[in-house]
Amino acid sequence: MKIIKGGVTEAKGFMAACTAAGIKYKGRCDMAMIYSKKPCVVAGCFTSNVVKAAPVLWDKKVVTESDYAQAVVVNAGIANACTGEEGLKYCEMTAECAGEVLKIDKDAVLVASTGVIGMQLPIDKICEGTKALAKSLSDTTEAGHDAALAIMTTDTKEKEVAVTVELSGKTVTIGGMCKGAGMIHPNMCTMLSFITTDACISKEMLDEALHEDVKDTYNMITVDGDTSTNDTVVVLANGEAGNDIIAEKNEDYKIFSEALHYINETLAKKMAADGEGATKLFEAKVVNAKSKEDAKILARSIVGSNLSKAAIFGCDANFGRFLCAMGYSGVDFDQNDVELFFTSEKGKIEVFHKGTPVAFDEDKAYEIMKTDAVTVYVDMHEGDAAATAWGCDLTYDYVKINADYRS
Amino acid sequence: MKIIKGGVTEAKGFMAACTAAGIKYKGRCDMAMIYSKKPCVVAGCFTSNVVKAAPVLWDKKVVTESDYAQAVVVNAGIANACTGEEGLKYCEMTAECAGEVLKIDKDAVLVASTGVIGMQLPIDKICEGTKALAKSLSDTTEAGHDAALAIMTTDTKEKEVAVTVELSGKTVTIGGMCKGAGMIHPNMCTMLSFITTDACISKEMLDEALHEDVKDTYNMITVDGDTSTNDTVVVLANGEAGNDIIAEKNEDYKIFSEALHYINETLAKKMAADGEGATKLFEAKVVNAKSKEDAKILARSIVGSNLSKAAIFGCDANFGRFLCAMGYSGVDFDQNDVELFFTSEKGKIEVFHKGTPVAFDEDKAYEIMKTDAVTVYVDMHEGDAAATAWGCDLTYDYVKINADYRS
Repeated sequence: MKIIKGGVTEAKGFMAACTAAGIKYKGRCDMAMIYSKKPCVVAGCFTSNVVKAAPVLWDKKVVTESDYAQAVVVNAGIANACTGEEGLKYCEMTAECAGEVLKIDKDAVLVASTGVIGMQLPIDKICEGTKALAKSLSDTTEAGHDAALAIMTTDTKEKEVAVTVELSGKTVTIGGMCKGAGMIHPNMCTMLSFITTDACISKEMLDEALHEDVKDTYNMITVDGDTSTNDTVVVLANGEAGNDIIAEKNEDYKIFSEALHYINETLAKKMAADGEGATKLFEAKVVNAKSKEDAKILARSIVGSNLSKAAIFGCDANFGRFLCAMGYSGVDFDQNDVELFFTSEKGKIEVFHKGTPVAFDEDKAYEIMKTDAVTVYVDMHEGDAAATAWGCDLTYDYVKINADYRS
Repeated sequence: MKIIKGGVTEAKGFMAACTAAGIKYKGRCDMAMIYSKKPCVVAGCFTSNVVKAAPVLWDKKVVTESDYAQAVVVNAGIANACTGEEGLKYCEMTAECAGEVLKIDKDAVLVASTGVIGMQLPIDKICEGTKALAKSLSDTTEAGHDAALAIMTTDTKEKEVAVTVELSGKTVTIGGMCKGAGMIHPNMCTMLSFITTDACISKEMLDEALHEDVKDTYNMITVDGDTSTNDTVVVLANGEAGNDIIAEKNEDYKIFSEALHYINETLAKKMAADGEGATKLFEAKVVNAKSKEDAKILARSIVGSNLSKAAIFGCDANFGRFLCAMGYSGVDFDQNDVELFFTSEKGKIEVFHKGTPVAFDEDKAYEIMKTDAVTVYVDMHEGDAAATAWGCDLTYDYVKINADYRS
């Protein structure tokens, strides 16, 4: 696998565009489009929140009922969630509008929205924007990059990644972009993540590869414990690489899945690190747990704890909070088995050893934690299962952003 | 039921004291004692966190195995959690020390600690403090008040309450005090809450009355989603009121339970309102839900959401966040049935009506939310069950307090 520059426009046959439709933000692009010259096999994962946004309902229908998909229209600023029948109608109108200019069926158009909940979309602006997008599509790396910028809300960094792998003698490319900084606690899926590939793969295999991987990537990040109404990840595969079709779990499927995992994990970590107000990535690695499920629950509980997150912000090796979060996670364990370390590029330090606090060097602990990526490493000494979860620190800026986000 | 001034020293035969033992804080009392002249029937509820603090383990033994209890020794500053065998030994030593000066069995002494996790108690100071406490016991209202002040950590207000009821022609008093501001998300019980009563009641009935009520009071509050390692509530009943013993679920049991409920709910709400950094009490009332369990889960999910809490801080009627929190709670419902209102002493306003946003008056909404107690009132239109949960807003000060709490 080779990591390359760029995002959604790297795979053959994919184009992207952005435009300033004036939905909510001023002086920046707030709409993006992804388009494939050829029809694509599509797989998607969506929020498990029972309050689903209108675009989620629309996209679920496209993914399950349409024969193929060929375009994605995204807007930032308004989430089109909690908007009733009117909101659903607007999804259809957006898809119709895109279909008309792109000369494809409206049922091949995915739509996605992110921003404030409970506000109707200015549908005229959305339709105008959609037409402008269709006219400015380009397959350059810059076009993909601009699209990644256009879908941001409280994000501070655009998030994209791309890789190539060799499959049956052909170079296959996978690229992706995503956005997400607040209301991040994916369950079944993440905020908005769009992945394009020119791999030739069956719908069944693409679906399985995505659903399997989501559990270890997007579903292992949290910013604030709030599972969004709009979480969406879709993968579009147009087959342009010309590799032998992946229609079973063979060696090519394995290589493709590993590359897809790299894309998903990279995008998921980028979202955690860019969590609202965050100053650093906060990773929890739990090893030697009784089961994979236990390890996941423990790791997620650690990165999800407000008190742990505030300690990470303060560079305070206050390990009791991390043990406390493990203790209320629902997993049964004996604290007398547990070893807990803080690690980063600056080193590793043990702070709790099998039931008893370690008299550790506070200065060294501070130095380890005063970095932009800190890991809490927990050895359960109970079995051989492991899991990693990602979050971020809880800061003044998180409160600032969310006390007046709507206005 | 009559509400009276005071706390744990109002019931006949109870005394309290505080002292500055110099455990962690300077220039303030940091230890408290409650003592009953007569042996007491005792009931207790403790944290469900599997990482239980040493005092929780000690107290569980006293509550289940001892014939009676007669004293409580509390310290603030260090939680004696994650402290291994040494921590457990210190509980026993504290109880021994108290037993010696009070001339009671060590197994009749409850101990409780609150503060930093993962640090050993300075046992010499604790023993000296315990002796000083025993010598300065008093049955005045002031002594109870001073004890309530001594057990505070990041609390900004002391929390106490007392009531009287008439049982078989006798005046029975129940009084309580508690502390708790951070790491508040009780499950089976709360932080530290101590209730004294001169009621004559059997251990079985006291136990049942407490355990039943905890579910609707302490277990319905949250500050930060972090279930503590030290959560403890104990009720001591010494029978000094001389009422006919409550040994079955008769009318007296009902009156006593209602009074106990008032004490518990009042203390629980005081903790929520005094949540770390909080500027206001944040209440969620869910009515007409399918089941009591559903109503409780929904109410707790609303007050537990960081995004909802930040919106409450910003006085922003950003109702989508509240619906979002309901949506990921795990309860199944149809958003097209739901009505959502904000209410406070300043009025009531509907913001979401059966699937569609209401065009509400933003100024009026702001006025309603700019108060020190805001309620989100949700009508599910699905059944007839209701529940209330309490939390607080998420503020800059929460982050400030927790980014450098240990140091």
